[in-house]
Amino acid sequence: MQKCKRLPYTTSSSSPTLALSELRRLLTSRDERERTGRFFADGLRPVVQALAAPGTRIEQLVLAPELLNNPLGESLRERLRAQRIPEVTLSASQYRQLSQLEEPQGVGVIVQRRPQRLSWLSPTDGEFFVALDTIRSPGNLGTILRTMDAVGASGLILIGGEIDPFDPRVVRATMGSLFAQHIVRTTEQEFASWRTQHGVALVGTSPHAATSYRELAWPQRTVLWLGGERAGLSQDQQAACDTVVRIPMVGTCDSLNVATAAAVLLYEVSFSRG
Amino acid sequence: MQKCKRLPYTTSSSSPTLALSELRRLLTSRDERERTGRFFADGLRPVVQALAAPGTRIEQLVLAPELLNNPLGESLRERLRAQRIPEVTLSASQYRQLSQLEEPQGVGVIVQRRPQRLSWLSPTDGEFFVALDTIRSPGNLGTILRTMDAVGASGLILIGGEIDPFDPRVVRATMGSLFAQHIVRTTEQEFASWRTQHGVALVGTSPHAATSYRELAWPQRTVLWLGGERAGLSQDQQAACDTVVRIPMVGTCDSLNVATAAAVLLYEVSFSRG
Repeated sequence: MQKCKRLPYTTSSSSPTLALSELRRLLTSRDERERTGRFFADGLRPVVQALAAPGTRIEQLVLAPELLNNPLGESLRERLRAQRIPEVTLSASQYRQLSQLEEPQGVGVIVQRRPQRLSWLSPTDGEFFVALDTIRSPGNLGTILRTMDAVGASGLILIGGEIDPFDPRVVRATMGSLFAQHIVRTTEQEFASWRTQHGVALVGTSPHAATSYRELAWPQRTVLWLGGERAGLSQDQQAACDTVVRIPMVGTCDSLNVATAAAVLLYEVSFSRG
Repeated sequence: MQKCKRLPYTTSSSSPTLALSELRRLLTSRDERERTGRFFADGLRPVVQALAAPGTRIEQLVLAPELLNNPLGESLRERLRAQRIPEVTLSASQYRQLSQLEEPQGVGVIVQRRPQRLSWLSPTDGEFFVALDTIRSPGNLGTILRTMDAVGASGLILIGGEIDPFDPRVVRATMGSLFAQHIVRTTEQEFASWRTQHGVALVGTSPHAATSYRELAWPQRTVLWLGGERAGLSQDQQAACDTVVRIPMVGTCDSLNVATAAAVLLYEVSFSRG
């Protein structure tokens, strides 16, 4: 399967290091993340993924040497030093206060992201995307991004501004897979014209749909639209879809966790690609 | 598919109401839950499910009338009163302190559970179970129980004592599906003899297994064994399985969230049952 091209980024060491207070603001304030275009990726795996992702600009390494008890940590530090990435050293307790992890690993990076636009994505046959508009749980969003990476999805399309994909709880739940996906924010209008322009089918879900997700001939270019945790897709949203599929349920529950539903559907799309 | 028989419980109103401090202990202390055999099911849906589940003994209704702004809440209260279930009334702020929900609904029940034993489960053809031993996240366990309900699994087998399925964070994530599953705790030894006695196949997962989960002829009586969040199943654990399957991954990530993996596999087993 062909993927959309990576965006042209360069690694830079021009920015001065951030003070601890600025780092804290980056973790607690969405406004700060959006104003600066920065976010914090915490832990060995995310740092490895950030280094490996072609389009990622790492601005700063944040280290707590006391917590860094993994040889991988030391080798990451060497690699980042070789790239002249500025380094900030914290005490174990300072790092623990920053980290979302139960057992902080003492290594993280501040990443500068460049906004990506929906219009830059030109899907080819075989590609599939996920669209979300009303999801609320950072853990669910992060888990969905992790699964999207596992199945080779092409990107996440956020309609509206409800959730911040660079919230540290999202970043944590992606386990580094955040760097493997295009993430674009768009409006309903722009999304609709993009679909028309590129012949992309919008597939929604509903427990009442006639077609099971296992029966669908998945369109060559697909956006899977997942509703929010509370109410799923509204009637109007379902009407806007090209197809609506059902994930069968036989028990007492009337809905699945949204990241669970995403996984079941994404693996099905991925298998339909052969 | 035939399911194991429900256990014979009766609804009783004999117990006196619990003080608020006792209720708090039930929510914060696993020891307290295990000593008393009680847990708290919070929210409209869990209360509906508790009332509908044949084997569930509801001991007490906990209400915050100020928060009860859903007509379903009032009708549940009437049903529980008709069954002479004792009732405790709290202020909105008292209830909010107890509740794990972002927007507490002001209704919950204290449930008395009777321990269930593995030896009581006699699987017939078509049945499937989930076994867990090292799972750590209450959210993941709850989500797995919710998916198990959706696909008609027969029960959850906890090997060892690592996690408490009646932790309020687990109960919350099940969205009421906790009441739809047999939940038994066992030892490795007892689990092994039970499998032999009933001809139940143990299916594990590993990213390195030769067989994809889509290619497996799923055994008629299956236990799906899921490893912990950190390391999955160990080499020894994989060797103890009858079959080990792989969930293919094509991206940069080398593992899935455990509740995600559970969903993908459980839907596959469920479809293999036709």
